[in-house]
Amino acid sequence: MTTIDLSVAEKRLNELDIHLPDPPTPFGAYVTAVQTGNLLFLSGTLATSGHSATITGVLGMDLDVAAGRKAAQTAALNAIALAKKHLGSLNRVSRVVRLGVYIAATPQFAEHVKVADGASELFRDLFGEQTLSSRLVIGVASLPLGSPVELEVILEVNR
Amino acid sequence: MTTIDLSVAEKRLNELDIHLPDPPTPFGAYVTAVQTGNLLFLSGTLATSGHSATITGVLGMDLDVAAGRKAAQTAALNAIALAKKHLGSLNRVSRVVRLGVYIAATPQFAEHVKVADGASELFRDLFGEQTLSSRLVIGVASLPLGSPVELEVILEVNR
Amino acid sequence: MTTIDLSVAEKRLNELDIHLPDPPTPFGAYVTAVQTGNLLFLSGTLATSGHSATITGVLGMDLDVAAGRKAAQTAALNAIALAKKHLGSLNRVSRVVRLGVYIAATPQFAEHVKVADGASELFRDLFGEQTLSSRLVIGVASLPLGSPVELEVILEVNR
Repeated sequence: MTTIDLSVAEKRLNELDIHLPDPPTPFGAYVTAVQTGNLLFLSGTLATSGHSATITGVLGMDLDVAAGRKAAQTAALNAIALAKKHLGSLNRVSRVVRLGVYIAATPQFAEHVKVADGASELFRDLFGEQTLSSRLVIGVASLPLGSPVELEVILEVNR
Repeated sequence: MTTIDLSVAEKRLNELDIHLPDPPTPFGAYVTAVQTGNLLFLSGTLATSGHSATITGVLGMDLDVAAGRKAAQTAALNAIALAKKHLGSLNRVSRVVRLGVYIAATPQFAEHVKVADGASELFRDLFGEQTLSSRLVIGVASLPLGSPVELEVILEVNR
Repeated sequence: MTTIDLSVAEKRLNELDIHLPDPPTPFGAYVTAVQTGNLLFLSGTLATSGHSATITGVLGMDLDVAAGRKAAQTAALNAIALAKKHLGSLNRVSRVVRLGVYIAATPQFAEHVKVADGASELFRDLFGEQTLSSRLVIGVASLPLGSPVELEVILEVNR
């Protein structure tokens, strides 16, 4: 395994002029992140601001790829805000291990990859090309609050 | 990380008068749990008794939230029974790391959170407020045997 | 935990006359596998050859169980090819920890288990009865490129 210096995520956040939202709070009987060993499991994040959806709909039915990408970016910013809240500093992230991308989509929709890249490109820009995640992308029937996209992230962190 | 004394799960099981079902057995070429390091990955559990569904249907089509919550509780009891079978005692669970909640739902359904809490509240009552899990909740097209809910649990355990 | 000698996967690959395809390359801003500690997270694999789907469709709508099983086998071979690429030798796999099986299916479809076994049986034949995985199987709305099946695999590996 290669050792990667990722202690620049906070610097990149400033350079890219990314303003993180307030981290999401739970909608039910769970917490927004759990660390076990040096893995941080983040709860699913949606295209939300506070407890409201910023956009609702289904890809291939009432939303196009551009709207899906924007929803994926919103969910990604929520995930990054959660990580920062739990870790104190994003510089503690040593690797983005796994990104799950769940897209509300019709049976005919086939452009899941383009929507998912809305999130993946933001992670890449922030954490760098050296720590691209593994990824699962699937089209689902519906998501909480009618959000078109949900993300689930596992991070490797320095203790 | 805080160290939490969770050695009370077996006591709570009695206090709450929870009667665990027989642990589910595999429906195919897999096992019901795999431990790696101190993580125990449980296979998906359904609203089943033996190899039969206790309820079938889709949220937003032929089932309401109350029926979905009950299905989530049944699946949660099956997961807890699996954990007990593999660990000997639930007191070995040091943390509920991640709960995946998969709900058979229509594209219009939006109350996934209420259904999922049927499972999460049971885990909370058993393992305590200190170890609420991270959580992913999505609405899917269909689940094995027509079950309305499937759960996937990762536990941190004392070796 | 039992210690299992699995150093025979490469031998079995030959005995079973399994010809691995070229490992899939990314469709977007992610990598095909990430190792953290001794866990290897593989990205989702589809029923693809290169960047094209070998079969498209939805179970219960335009594909039957036999076609779904074949798609699951194709996705499994892609996952195994990825593992071999990242590890050098499949003999480094000490355990198949978790297999996620995502099946594009109608709300009425209920035979997800038979489709998923198309993949699980291939893993069993290759890595042995002693290391059957835990498993999650769900029916989803749609998958990238219209693939009927997607797999997501976590392996425990010798470093």
